[in-house]
Amino acid sequence: MSLDHATRKPHDRLAAALSDDLVAVNEMIRARMASEHAPRIPEVTAHLVSAGGKRLRPMLTLAAARICGYVGPYHIHLAATVEFIHTATLLHDDVVDESKQRRGRPTANLLWDNTSSVLVGDYLFARSFQLMVETGSLKVLDILANAAATIAEGEVLQLTAARNLATTEEIYLKVVRGKTAALFSAATEVGGVIAGAAPDQVRALFEYGDALGIAFQIVDDLLDYSGVGAEMGKNPGDDFREGKLTLPVIRAVARADAEERDFWTRTIQKGRVAEGDLDHAMSLLARHGTIESTRAEAMLWAGRAKQALRHLPAHEIRDMLHDLVDYVLVRVN
Amino acid sequence: MSLDHATRKPHDRLAAALSDDLVAVNEMIRARMASEHAPRIPEVTAHLVSAGGKRLRPMLTLAAARICGYVGPYHIHLAATVEFIHTATLLHDDVVDESKQRRGRPTANLLWDNTSSVLVGDYLFARSFQLMVETGSLKVLDILANAAATIAEGEVLQLTAARNLATTEEIYLKVVRGKTAALFSAATEVGGVIAGAAPDQVRALFEYGDALGIAFQIVDDLLDYSGVGAEMGKNPGDDFREGKLTLPVIRAVARADAEERDFWTRTIQKGRVAEGDLDHAMSLLARHGTIESTRAEAMLWAGRAKQALRHLPAHEIRDMLHDLVDYVLVRVN
Repeated sequence: MSLDHATRKPHDRLAAALSDDLVAVNEMIRARMASEHAPRIPEVTAHLVSAGGKRLRPMLTLAAARICGYVGPYHIHLAATVEFIHTATLLHDDVVDESKQRRGRPTANLLWDNTSSVLVGDYLFARSFQLMVETGSLKVLDILANAAATIAEGEVLQLTAARNLATTEEIYLKVVRGKTAALFSAATEVGGVIAGAAPDQVRALFEYGDALGIAFQIVDDLLDYSGVGAEMGKNPGDDFREGKLTLPVIRAVARADAEERDFWTRTIQKGRVAEGDLDHAMSLLARHGTIESTRAEAMLWAGRAKQALRHLPAHEIRDMLHDLVDYVLVRVN
Repeated sequence: MSLDHATRKPHDRLAAALSDDLVAVNEMIRARMASEHAPRIPEVTAHLVSAGGKRLRPMLTLAAARICGYVGPYHIHLAATVEFIHTATLLHDDVVDESKQRRGRPTANLLWDNTSSVLVGDYLFARSFQLMVETGSLKVLDILANAAATIAEGEVLQLTAARNLATTEEIYLKVVRGKTAALFSAATEVGGVIAGAAPDQVRALFEYGDALGIAFQIVDDLLDYSGVGAEMGKNPGDDFREGKLTLPVIRAVARADAEERDFWTRTIQKGRVAEGDLDHAMSLLARHGTIESTRAEAMLWAGRAKQALRHLPAHEIRDMLHDLVDYVLVRVN
């Protein structure tokens, strides 16, 4: 194991290996974000798609294309497409969250409120659509159109499942695919498709992205009950207070006795959360071992992601995608 | 002139001539609106895409395909696509208008507020995208991707142009293309493209849709200063109160003396509108003849729309598109 391997995170090693492509992706994002007719659009998007972003999704596309031996120019378009879709989703999520929490953010600028989030999100969707059309691949368009529908359905499903104690693990999985895995799997799949990879390799790329995305989201949900807030950019307990049913809670509700069920009904379903309830919720998760079993579920999907990679050609980038899986998990280990 | 021709509106005659296709479009809209994963989506969209709608945009696509002799199935997909895009735009406009006016609508149902407008709009965009991919025509995808970008840019431009007295007729035209004409022209153009029409015919279809859309929107803006509210589904003076600079005002501002300019600065730019100001605004438009000159501008675009039709094959549907232009204008004559 080289010093490089030992000291750098898998994400950073992947970024280093793909650095030329990433420069081209950043350049394309900057160029396509610009609007001749509405010059203020980049002001809104700049902070979201600035060069400082992690670029995880575009890297998945670049990595998939590279592993499959692609030599054309269109993996750059597709990587930019995937980042635009991700950013558009974040912008629209802002409206959804704001509306639900009824936060009274001051709107100093007309272009920094709900309106801008909706319209600039729509603009980025349209731009991403133009980029993928330029690739001339109907298969790629088909994959991304289906991903877009899955993402939108997942968001609506999450909304209707909130505060509903009858939410099943099956519904949770659909929400997770919509929130995260659908774009991960589309990102890897289109990288293979644009490279003209064989169907079994394309399938493997889809499965890697799908499983990685699911593991990623399960870990994210787990951190809400165990993570250190500042590091994660989120406050532990947010999901609890917002009545979102994630896997640790779904499993604890399934094992609840009458008294515990009353607790979940009051807090999650009715949204009446008092001082100390988060601590009590966490003690119930501990009692039923659902933090442990949820972690095991994430490990299971991580294993599936690694398994899928075996169908791909040997390649240093493939090994980095393997290590990336562990990096996702390490957040809860 | 038959009794039928004399007594029925052009819109209704077009609907009658295309009735079989319209039934198929309505059926496809119903089928594709449904979501297996998020069954509540159709509840939100049903009132928007119910069979009672005018279906003007889908009819443009069906008419264009018919005139160009199309015999395949995909004009139905494209007509449904265009209606979905239109509906998604309306949903997102709701959020924009609500946010600007800060209306405090009660949100009895989580799925009937900003959140639902954003997410269901996104869902319909994704669905429209799937429908167009099914046609297998990259040219069609290119046209609709560009239209989507023009629509989004136009919305942002309208927002930044609001309350800005420096808004020019050129900017107004861009806003109008984004709000209305871009989808009209894409609707007619894709009808010709899917039929494999010659480039000059496709160009003519684009120009017809573009000019019709511009005439339509200019007339709509004019009605805000002269229409009868109940008939039009809008309240006269809305644009004035919201500080939207439409053609009659842009032209009156350009001709304003110092005192008139102070009036426009106070009302449109600063948004300080008092009792009697709408009447005074209308007297200024009358003084400078801008209602008349705006009506003439709409007539000019209507003439261009009719002119474009000459490049298309003789066809009874073509004649109906000709009469449809007058129908759009009759609202202000």
